[in-house]
Amino acid sequence: MTPTIFGNPHGEFMPFATVDSNNQNLASLLFSCVDQVGIIAALANYFSERDLNISRYAEYTDDGHFFSRLEWPMNDRWEDESAFEVEFASMAAHYNARFDVRFMSQQQTIGLFASKQPHALIEILNKYEANFFPNIEVSFIIGNYQPMQKIADRHGIPFFFVPTDGDTAAYERKQLDIVHRYKPDYLGLARYMKVLSENFIDTAGCPIINIHHSFLPSFVGAKPYQMAYDRGVKLIGATSHFVTAELDQGPIIEQDVARVAPGASVQDMVKMGRDIEQKVFAHALLKVLEHKAIVHKNRTIIFN
Amino acid sequence: MTPTIFGNPHGEFMPFATVDSNNQNLASLLFSCVDQVGIIAALANYFSERDLNISRYAEYTDDGHFFSRLEWPMNDRWEDESAFEVEFASMAAHYNARFDVRFMSQQQTIGLFASKQPHALIEILNKYEANFFPNIEVSFIIGNYQPMQKIADRHGIPFFFVPTDGDTAAYERKQLDIVHRYKPDYLGLARYMKVLSENFIDTAGCPIINIHHSFLPSFVGAKPYQMAYDRGVKLIGATSHFVTAELDQGPIIEQDVARVAPGASVQDMVKMGRDIEQKVFAHALLKVLEHKAIVHKNRTIIFN
Amino acid sequence: MTPTIFGNPHGEFMPFATVDSNNQNLASLLFSCVDQVGIIAALANYFSERDLNISRYAEYTDDGHFFSRLEWPMNDRWEDESAFEVEFASMAAHYNARFDVRFMSQQQTIGLFASKQPHALIEILNKYEANFFPNIEVSFIIGNYQPMQKIADRHGIPFFFVPTDGDTAAYERKQLDIVHRYKPDYLGLARYMKVLSENFIDTAGCPIINIHHSFLPSFVGAKPYQMAYDRGVKLIGATSHFVTAELDQGPIIEQDVARVAPGASVQDMVKMGRDIEQKVFAHALLKVLEHKAIVHKNRTIIFN
Amino acid sequence: MTPTIFGNPHGEFMPFATVDSNNQNLASLLFSCVDQVGIIAALANYFSERDLNISRYAEYTDDGHFFSRLEWPMNDRWEDESAFEVEFASMAAHYNARFDVRFMSQQQTIGLFASKQPHALIEILNKYEANFFPNIEVSFIIGNYQPMQKIADRHGIPFFFVPTDGDTAAYERKQLDIVHRYKPDYLGLARYMKVLSENFIDTAGCPIINIHHSFLPSFVGAKPYQMAYDRGVKLIGATSHFVTAELDQGPIIEQDVARVAPGASVQDMVKMGRDIEQKVFAHALLKVLEHKAIVHKNRTIIFN
Repeated sequence: MTPTIFGNPHGEFMPFATVDSNNQNLASLLFSCVDQVGIIAALANYFSERDLNISRYAEYTDDGHFFSRLEWPMNDRWEDESAFEVEFASMAAHYNARFDVRFMSQQQTIGLFASKQPHALIEILNKYEANFFPNIEVSFIIGNYQPMQKIADRHGIPFFFVPTDGDTAAYERKQLDIVHRYKPDYLGLARYMKVLSENFIDTAGCPIINIHHSFLPSFVGAKPYQMAYDRGVKLIGATSHFVTAELDQGPIIEQDVARVAPGASVQDMVKMGRDIEQKVFAHALLKVLEHKAIVHKNRTIIFN
Repeated sequence: MTPTIFGNPHGEFMPFATVDSNNQNLASLLFSCVDQVGIIAALANYFSERDLNISRYAEYTDDGHFFSRLEWPMNDRWEDESAFEVEFASMAAHYNARFDVRFMSQQQTIGLFASKQPHALIEILNKYEANFFPNIEVSFIIGNYQPMQKIADRHGIPFFFVPTDGDTAAYERKQLDIVHRYKPDYLGLARYMKVLSENFIDTAGCPIINIHHSFLPSFVGAKPYQMAYDRGVKLIGATSHFVTAELDQGPIIEQDVARVAPGASVQDMVKMGRDIEQKVFAHALLKVLEHKAIVHKNRTIIFN
Repeated sequence: MTPTIFGNPHGEFMPFATVDSNNQNLASLLFSCVDQVGIIAALANYFSERDLNISRYAEYTDDGHFFSRLEWPMNDRWEDESAFEVEFASMAAHYNARFDVRFMSQQQTIGLFASKQPHALIEILNKYEANFFPNIEVSFIIGNYQPMQKIADRHGIPFFFVPTDGDTAAYERKQLDIVHRYKPDYLGLARYMKVLSENFIDTAGCPIINIHHSFLPSFVGAKPYQMAYDRGVKLIGATSHFVTAELDQGPIIEQDVARVAPGASVQDMVKMGRDIEQKVFAHALLKVLEHKAIVHKNRTIIFN
Repeated sequence: MTPTIFGNPHGEFMPFATVDSNNQNLASLLFSCVDQVGIIAALANYFSERDLNISRYAEYTDDGHFFSRLEWPMNDRWEDESAFEVEFASMAAHYNARFDVRFMSQQQTIGLFASKQPHALIEILNKYEANFFPNIEVSFIIGNYQPMQKIADRHGIPFFFVPTDGDTAAYERKQLDIVHRYKPDYLGLARYMKVLSENFIDTAGCPIINIHHSFLPSFVGAKPYQMAYDRGVKLIGATSHFVTAELDQGPIIEQDVARVAPGASVQDMVKMGRDIEQKVFAHALLKVLEHKAIVHKNRTIIFN
C-alpha cells in the first residue's frame, strides 16, 4: 500500500499511473547561428568524436538563421551542464552561435504566481504530479488571494500570500525576495492578474512564462473575452508567451482556439475559454521545460 | 477570510472566482416525438397559458423526429419536477411524445468510478469545485486503486476502495450496494478500466457515462492508443458515451481529436491523449447535467 | 448525354453529382427585437393561423435581444416576398422588430470581384456549379487582372476587366456602372485587393462580403501573413466579414485557423493559408445566401 | 497582356499569382534503416565530402527504425537521380538502408481517376494550375462519367472515358492500357468510386493514392456518411492513403475532421464532408510529390 516514491522528490508524491518516458540520462543542446554550409556535419562530428550518440536531431532554417536541437544519452565524462558548455564553447564560437545545454539529470525548478482563478494553476499541479513534465520541481507558489493556500497545501508546495493592493514597488519587493531566495529556473504566471513592472522582469533572474486569455495579438490587456464578444469573433483563444516589458508582446510559445457557440455570452466565453487557457499554458511550459524552445528576435522556434 | 458558501453544498467548497450563471430558478423540458404540424405553437401556448415565459428554445428535426428543449424561469406553482410532469403528461400524450422535466433548484447527484489514472477524475473534481457544472453534488467515488483515496479526500468526497481482482459478480455486488445506498442520478466512469457487466448496467438505476480513449467506432476495447499507433492514424481522439451492454457501442455524447506529431510513440500518444480525454469527458457530463442531451435510437441529440 | 438543366439556370451547367436538398418551396424569416415575453407563442400562432407549418425554428438571445429564424414550406397565397412582408409588418411593428423574409423560389444574385489570386474565386465557382449554394446566380465578375477572364469563361459568367491603376473615383465609377446594371443582391470580394471607398460601399446598393487573410482583429490591412510571421503566431487564420467604411472592421461572419508548421516561411503561410481563406469565404457566403445571418451592432448572429 | 509561361509546361498555363518557392535546383533523399549509432555523422560526411550542402534535414526514430530526409541544392556532377542513387548505394548498403532520391528538376507525372463527384478532382487541378504542387505534370484523367470531360478540357488535360458497368477485368484492361502508355509516377483516385482489383494494383507500376470519405479505420467501404450518421459520431473525417489490395487498409498519409452540426442529416454530412475530402487529398498528394512520405510497415512517416 505504501507507494515507492519516484519522479517528484517532494513529500506529497502520488503514485498514479504515469507516462514517464523522461529518461534522466538524456542531455540536449539548443544551437542557433546564421545559416551556413556544413553545420550539421560539424555538429555530428563533434559528438561522434566524443563517443556521444545523437539519438534525436531536428533543425529549422528561418529568417536566414539555423536552429537545431540535439538529444543524446549522457555519459559521465562531464560533471554537469557547465562543464559541457565550457568545452563546447569554442565550437560555438567558430560559428558565432548561441547555444544552451541541458542535462535531464539536473532538476529544473519553477515558481508559480496565481490570483483568484485556480484552473491554470490546478492543471499545472496535476500534470506535475502525474509526471507530465520532465524532471522538475515546483518550488513555490506566490498568490494575491489567500484561499489559494489550500491548493498549494494539497500538493505540499510552499505558498506565499502577498497582497497586491498597495504600492507596486512595495509588493513586488516582497515577491522578489521570495524569488531570489528560491532562484527558480523559470517563473510561470498561472492567470496571475497583475502586470509585472519592468524592474521585476529585469531582476527576477529567470525567464517568465505567462498565459494570456486571448489569441494574441488580438485583445491585449485586461478584458479580452469582453473585447472578443464586442468584436464578434467566431473563435476565442489563448496564448502562452515569454514576458517582456511591453504588455502581452513577448515571444509566443503556444496558442490554441475554440469555436464560439451561437448566442454565447461573455460569461460563456470565459467558462469555455478556461479549457484552452489551461491546456495552452501546460503545453507551453512543457516545451520550455523539455528544452525545446529557442527565442529568436520576438519569435520562438519550437521543436517537436 | 471565511468564504460564504454557495453553489456546492458540501463542506469543502473553495471560494474561487467562478462563472456562476447557473440560475437555480430555471427549469427545462426535453421533448421528442414524431415530427408533425403545429408542435411549436402547441408548446408555446401551453407555457403561455400557464404564465411561464420560455427564455430559451431550441429544436432539431432528425430521422423524421422532432426534438426540442425549452428553458424558463420557474414560479412556485409546481412543487417539484414530478408535479410539473404529471400535469404535462396529457399534452405529451397528445403527441405521443417522450419528455423529461428538470428544475435546476433540485440538486442532481453523480457518483464517479476511477482506476489508476487520475487525470479524468481530477478534471471533473476541479471543474466541480469551480462551479463549471450546474447545481450538482458528487456523492461518492468508487475506486479499485487505494491511493486515489487521497484525491477524494482533497475534495471531501466519500471514497470507497473496492478491489476488482476477483470474481466480477462479487465485486460488482459491493459496488452496487454503494450505488443503491446513494441513488445518484448519474454514474460517471472517469477512466475506470473494468468492463461493467450487463447486470450492473441494468440494476445501477441510472444512466452511466464513460470516457473512452479513442475516436469511436475506431479502436474499441483495451489498448486503443496501441491500435491507433499500429494503424498509423494521423489524429487520435476520445469519445464520451452512455454505457450500454455492448462494449463501447453506446450513444456518443461528445468527441474530439488531436494531431499526432510525426515520430510520436505510443507513450507520446497516451500522454497527449489525456488532455482530450479529460476535456471530452467534462464537456459530455456538462451537456448531460445541463439537461441538454436526448438519446434517440443509438444516437444523441445535443443542444447548445 | 445532354443533361437536364436544373439548379443553375445559366447555360454552362454541369450535371455532376450534387447534394441538392435546396427545396425551392421553402421560405424563411429572420426576426429580431428586444427580448420580451411571449414572442415564440406570437410567432407560432401567426404562422399557425395562416396554415403555415414551421418546419425549422431556431432562436438565440444575446445582448438583451431576441434573434430567431423560421423556415416553412410556402403555399401560393403570397405572390412574393414583398407581399408576405407587407402582411407581416404589423406583427413586427407590435414588437418593434426588424425582420426579413426570403422565398427560396426567388433566385438571389451575386456579383464577384477578383484580383490576381484565383483560389477564392475558383472555390466559389466550383461550389456554385455543384449546387453547394441555394438557388442563386453568379451574375458577373469584375476583375483588375485580365487573365481572370479565362476562369469566368469556363463557367460562362460575364467578366468585366476594370483596371485599378489610376484614380479611385474613376475606376469605381466604372465598377458601379456594372453593379447598378446587374443590381445583385450581394457582392463578394474574392481576394479583391483594393480598398473600397466609402462612396462605393454607400452606393453599391447591396451588402458586400469580403474574405480577409488573417484572423481579425489581428493583422488588419495589406500584408497579414508577413505581420503574422513577424509576430510569431502559432496559428494563421482567415476572416469573412461584411464590408463597412472602416477597413477590416465590419461584422464577422465566419473565421477559421490552421497551425503554422515549425520553420514555416511567410511564403509557406501564404500557400497554406489559401485553403482556409477559400473555405471560410465559401462558408460565409453559404450562411448569407441561406438567409442565416443577422447583423446586430458590429456582430453577426449566425444560425445553424 | 500575353503572360510568360513558367511552372506548368502544358499549354493551358494560367499566369495567376502563385507561391512558387519550388526551387527546381533542389534534390532530396529519403533514407531509413534500423536505428544505430553514427548515421547522422555518416550522412553529413557523405554529403560534405561531395561538396553538397544540406539545406534541410529532418529525422525521426520510430519502431526502432531511423527515418530521415535531406534536401540540398544539386550541382551538375550527377546527370540524374539514377546516377546519384548508384553512387549512394554502397553507403546505404553499409546501413542496410532503404533510400530514394529525387531531383526536383526531373518532372514527376501523375494520372488521375474520377467518377461523378468532381470536387476532389477540381481542387487538385486548381492547385496544380496555381503551382501548389512542385514540378509535376497531370498527364491524364480517366473517368467513368462522360461529363467530366469538360473539366479535363478546361485544363487541357487528356481525358479518357472508360465506362465501368461491365466486367471488371475488361474495363481495367482498358484503364491499364492508358496507364502503361503514360507511365505516370503516381496515380491519384479523386473520389473514384470503384474498387481496384488486386491485379490492377499489382500491375499499375506506380503507387496509388486514394481519398476515402471517412476517418479511417472507421467506416470502411461504400457509404461512410450513412454509417457515421447511424453511429451518431460528433465529427466526420476524410483519409488519404496509399492503396493496397485490402480495401481502405493501406498506409494513411493524411487525415482531418470537421464537427457535425446538431441535427445534421446524412445529406448535410455529405455536403460538408467535401471540404475535408478535397483538402486532405490535396495535402496528401503534396506530401508525396514533395518527396516527404516514407512507408514503413502499414504506416507512413511524413516530414514537415
